[in-house]
Amino acid sequence: MKALTYDGKGKIKVVDKPKPEIKNADEAIVKLLRTTICGTDLHIIKGDVPTCEQGRTLGHEGVGIVEDIGSEVKGIKKGDRVLIGCITGCATCSFCKRSMQDQCKHGGWVLGHTIDGTQAEHVRIPFASNTLFPVPTGVSERSLLLYSDILPTGLEVGALRGQVVPGSTVAIVGAGPIGLASALAARLYSPKKIVFFDRDESRLQVAKKMGADEVINTSKTSVEGVRAMAKQHFGEVDGFDVVIEAVGVPETFQMCQDLVGIGGRIANVGVHGVGVKLDIDRLWPRSTTISMALVSTHTIPMLLDLAAAGKLDTSALITHDFYLADFKFNEIEKAYDIFGRAAETKSLKVNIEFD
Amino acid sequence: MKALTYDGKGKIKVVDKPKPEIKNADEAIVKLLRTTICGTDLHIIKGDVPTCEQGRTLGHEGVGIVEDIGSEVKGIKKGDRVLIGCITGCATCSFCKRSMQDQCKHGGWVLGHTIDGTQAEHVRIPFASNTLFPVPTGVSERSLLLYSDILPTGLEVGALRGQVVPGSTVAIVGAGPIGLASALAARLYSPKKIVFFDRDESRLQVAKKMGADEVINTSKTSVEGVRAMAKQHFGEVDGFDVVIEAVGVPETFQMCQDLVGIGGRIANVGVHGVGVKLDIDRLWPRSTTISMALVSTHTIPMLLDLAAAGKLDTSALITHDFYLADFKFNEIEKAYDIFGRAAETKSLKVNIEFD
Amino acid sequence: MKALTYDGKGKIKVVDKPKPEIKNADEAIVKLLRTTICGTDLHIIKGDVPTCEQGRTLGHEGVGIVEDIGSEVKGIKKGDRVLIGCITGCATCSFCKRSMQDQCKHGGWVLGHTIDGTQAEHVRIPFASNTLFPVPTGVSERSLLLYSDILPTGLEVGALRGQVVPGSTVAIVGAGPIGLASALAARLYSPKKIVFFDRDESRLQVAKKMGADEVINTSKTSVEGVRAMAKQHFGEVDGFDVVIEAVGVPETFQMCQDLVGIGGRIANVGVHGVGVKLDIDRLWPRSTTISMALVSTHTIPMLLDLAAAGKLDTSALITHDFYLADFKFNEIEKAYDIFGRAAETKSLKVNIEFD
Amino acid sequence: MKALTYDGKGKIKVVDKPKPEIKNADEAIVKLLRTTICGTDLHIIKGDVPTCEQGRTLGHEGVGIVEDIGSEVKGIKKGDRVLIGCITGCATCSFCKRSMQDQCKHGGWVLGHTIDGTQAEHVRIPFASNTLFPVPTGVSERSLLLYSDILPTGLEVGALRGQVVPGSTVAIVGAGPIGLASALAARLYSPKKIVFFDRDESRLQVAKKMGADEVINTSKTSVEGVRAMAKQHFGEVDGFDVVIEAVGVPETFQMCQDLVGIGGRIANVGVHGVGVKLDIDRLWPRSTTISMALVSTHTIPMLLDLAAAGKLDTSALITHDFYLADFKFNEIEKAYDIFGRAAETKSLKVNIEFD
Repeated sequence: MKALTYDGKGKIKVVDKPKPEIKNADEAIVKLLRTTICGTDLHIIKGDVPTCEQGRTLGHEGVGIVEDIGSEVKGIKKGDRVLIGCITGCATCSFCKRSMQDQCKHGGWVLGHTIDGTQAEHVRIPFASNTLFPVPTGVSERSLLLYSDILPTGLEVGALRGQVVPGSTVAIVGAGPIGLASALAARLYSPKKIVFFDRDESRLQVAKKMGADEVINTSKTSVEGVRAMAKQHFGEVDGFDVVIEAVGVPETFQMCQDLVGIGGRIANVGVHGVGVKLDIDRLWPRSTTISMALVSTHTIPMLLDLAAAGKLDTSALITHDFYLADFKFNEIEKAYDIFGRAAETKSLKVNIEFD
Repeated sequence: MKALTYDGKGKIKVVDKPKPEIKNADEAIVKLLRTTICGTDLHIIKGDVPTCEQGRTLGHEGVGIVEDIGSEVKGIKKGDRVLIGCITGCATCSFCKRSMQDQCKHGGWVLGHTIDGTQAEHVRIPFASNTLFPVPTGVSERSLLLYSDILPTGLEVGALRGQVVPGSTVAIVGAGPIGLASALAARLYSPKKIVFFDRDESRLQVAKKMGADEVINTSKTSVEGVRAMAKQHFGEVDGFDVVIEAVGVPETFQMCQDLVGIGGRIANVGVHGVGVKLDIDRLWPRSTTISMALVSTHTIPMLLDLAAAGKLDTSALITHDFYLADFKFNEIEKAYDIFGRAAETKSLKVNIEFD
Repeated sequence: MKALTYDGKGKIKVVDKPKPEIKNADEAIVKLLRTTICGTDLHIIKGDVPTCEQGRTLGHEGVGIVEDIGSEVKGIKKGDRVLIGCITGCATCSFCKRSMQDQCKHGGWVLGHTIDGTQAEHVRIPFASNTLFPVPTGVSERSLLLYSDILPTGLEVGALRGQVVPGSTVAIVGAGPIGLASALAARLYSPKKIVFFDRDESRLQVAKKMGADEVINTSKTSVEGVRAMAKQHFGEVDGFDVVIEAVGVPETFQMCQDLVGIGGRIANVGVHGVGVKLDIDRLWPRSTTISMALVSTHTIPMLLDLAAAGKLDTSALITHDFYLADFKFNEIEKAYDIFGRAAETKSLKVNIEFD
Repeated sequence: MKALTYDGKGKIKVVDKPKPEIKNADEAIVKLLRTTICGTDLHIIKGDVPTCEQGRTLGHEGVGIVEDIGSEVKGIKKGDRVLIGCITGCATCSFCKRSMQDQCKHGGWVLGHTIDGTQAEHVRIPFASNTLFPVPTGVSERSLLLYSDILPTGLEVGALRGQVVPGSTVAIVGAGPIGLASALAARLYSPKKIVFFDRDESRLQVAKKMGADEVINTSKTSVEGVRAMAKQHFGEVDGFDVVIEAVGVPETFQMCQDLVGIGGRIANVGVHGVGVKLDIDRLWPRSTTISMALVSTHTIPMLLDLAAAGKLDTSALITHDFYLADFKFNEIEKAYDIFGRAAETKSLKVNIEFD
């Protein structure tokens, strides 16, 4: 079969690999129908993830059909259309029992990282009972791609840890895919308003189109300027109730500290490569809480339920489509090119469809 | 001034009363702009509320202008447009500090009950800092009437105690004003679906129009029949996640017990006059929680915030308008007539507007 | 091997059975070191549990050594000393993922019910990763018997669902084993006081010895009398913050309704065979919550941790010891006799030790 | 009357002042029975608190008798023995309603800061209904001094925001008064173990005497060394579940980051004067939450309840006693001297008793 692999720092390569086979009674083999690319895949290619070896098939998101299934797998059978969750959990370790599959002692984030992933024609899924999710009827397969990682991340790490409640004011710093997914998730709790902050006007316009109450372009002003522009949303708490960090650099984390209100929460979703400064002297007397976490994917079944009920519209998040039909698996490289130059191409998430 | 009073069992009467005056530094006098009628007012007239004496001005809902204000009142000033909350709390007793103003040791439900209420040209409001709420700009005054009692009741006693969360399935037994308000409140938490149960087809049609996912007419079938009709919504929990009782008779409470799923919650909003049977032998091994409470109104500020942000559309709940202009205060009796014959007149809440 | 079986209504019988063997990769075989008897075993013998067939080995509590283990079992290995949880959960169904193993689609309460249980020399444990718990060093094996069922039940169904918090006043109706275990669990949250209600003076004295702040003998007085005696503990909420029902008959449930304070919680732990009357007309305006559930055992690891740290002293709960040594397996019948006549024998839980 | 005042940077002075009088209907005058000194008083004297003017009577803790009372004060009457809470809340602003009296729009921390405080013979208390707490009978007056500030701080900012639950492992960095109070508060939730970290061996010994499970002297080792010494307590989460920062300098905050486990919480209680470094790159994939706040004192009534029930023993926290009898008010200066040289004098909290 064909697979897109990490070929060492800066490189990807389409290769032929043997079709995977079940090694363990709790596994399944899934034939991919669709996959997509994540910012984390780009991190691997940049060489930022040393635990990912050269030759590894990339990808931890996807939708497919169960081709083969181990004897111990529950809740799923051969032929089922399934969503592949980005996190693989054993379900029985102390972390999994606390809904922290991301820290699973026998799994965690392994797909497209320490074992071969979903950017291939077939993939082997360990702990399939807990990693695959039957796809409800009536949900667009294309939009399902967002339920593997980005939407549960926005919900679990953004909205839930940020404690969005009805009436909250929510600032989202970063209008990329994960910021937009955080907004979709936050909206499940009826915030009073969601305000986006970004330097990229086109991304802000997408945010606006997806229902942001206001967008603020931070490219032309200082921190004080940003705070001044945002001030109209501050209210008695002198800031936002919830601030979601969806970028991952010191400057944006600093902006979050400048925007958070009294009693407010900063929910960090961004992937940080270095430490940041914490204004504890200023934030301490203002009752501030800061959270940071990986996605565990325990909310995927609920999100799929809402999708099936027509209560979540995620279509605007997919901007480009690629078809790997007729032996043109190499089209996936084009997808990487488009996704990798997001600022220019205005891409958010891409839909990569198999034959 | 004119006032609508309880005139003994079965009777109301429009009378002249002296305009109220401030007796205490924490009080305010409000000139009414609008008021409305509650099912509780009808209970008083029926003679069900012995603590309400003959001659009492009825009404515990309304919108008005602050005419006079005591020296200790905070957060409100003369001339402010205010919403009158149906519950009066001292803010400092142990119940108020636990957000249970309904049990306030110095207040609670007093307006139109143990002191003169809001169905008059002016009303004296004790503990005004905690009973009056400044009206945000941009909210329709007419729709504000729903924020005095019915909407916070639906939220606090229905959605919050029923623990509606994203993805919940919600059954509401009773499509009257309070059931409809419970649905509006439940929707703030993005349930998967809301299904209404009632015998009155016209009320069910209003529920449908207001966004119910499904309505089930219970007039033509047995309990088993109702359960059978609802079964398509049951899922793995063999029932609904949340069942809101919005009627208050043994038959409807029984229906709630038949509809609640494993791990589910029955949130009782209905006003009950007699005890009911609890199927504890059947519900106990299914992990059931039953809650019942009065509204405390602590959620009014948040609801007003959402209203101001245009995130709550309550207009369909007001069905009839009355104008007490040109000395025609007696029009309020017509409002009582229409509201009292709800089944025939298809009335939900009425808007009674002062000159 | 020897096993104690249900021999049809009213009868038990010691029989020889083949030693169980692993059928599935997720199972383990445990050689019992100790077991005990539960009130539920007596219910089965009375014929109250039709799902339990004649010939079934009874028992769902115990401590043992892992003799054999399937290839998929995680967290446990051959030779480990383990606690057997009374509930068997697959870990991956929607109920198990919500910490409701009692409702597991592939398990639940099966041991000594629908499959052979722990009152035998060996027992086969399905879903062993999730049903067996490694025993920490330093915990008395004898006291461990309480961690299979009674202590997690008292915690999960009593203290947690009753929402005991620091400063709570707690009434426990029923000073039998499960009431006493509920008190031990409640005390983890530092209530202000725990008051026991029972008709049996000797049980009340055990409660007192185990740290109850007060005990009230209900045998000599009416409901009003009980309420009068308890009144000194009522405070501003006119009752107890938490009332734990640990008997399971209509009279005791009624007593709970008479004892619960404003804003209070009734946590039902008792096993009810018939419905009860719910004073909804009286409790509704007092903000009452009623919960009822089975134990899920998800708190066992935490309880074992506390036991290992020396923070839980459960020794007073075991009153009688039996040794099945030297081929005297039939001693277990004596244990049943003593446990079955608890009022006379003053037994709480019994320790049945294998050779 | 006599009062101890801030006399400009580095200086205090005993002065004669007129006895305070009620200015407002919601106020009370309290005759002090006892007071104490807080680290914050020392901060003021150092000149760190510019909002505190020269001449201000210091002190925000104390026990006394109500001498005079305004007409609007509820729950308290002349002659009552009361505890003075360190925070003054109006009870009706949006912050007070959220149990954040520390952010009260009309109050907050004002005593001994922006208005005259409790280190005087008499003190005027604004919003007395909400700032004074009737003292239950049977509680030692001397130990009550800890309930004004230090114990609610340890509970609200330490144990509650750190989410101590039964079975938690808790690290407390700093064995001064506030760290010790945090341990007392944490113990209300039955943690598995509490481990103290400090450089001062004598403080660690007090911690041990007060029930710490272990103490670690950090004076003789590097960060890695501290982590190595603590490792035996780490368990599967590779650190502590809860880490309470009770010092307030960058080094100790760093230590907290090194000690917190996967899924853990850092609860900052310490008063910080400068920013710190946040290891977000390392803590983010470990699911870390950091909280920081001021005390609101909303837990004082519950703490007093527990004290009255004999469930809190705080006596070891008071190390020195001073009697201001016979016109020797100046003894209070000695109290400052002893408290200010805590390392030498081994003082924790001091009891200053009035005639």
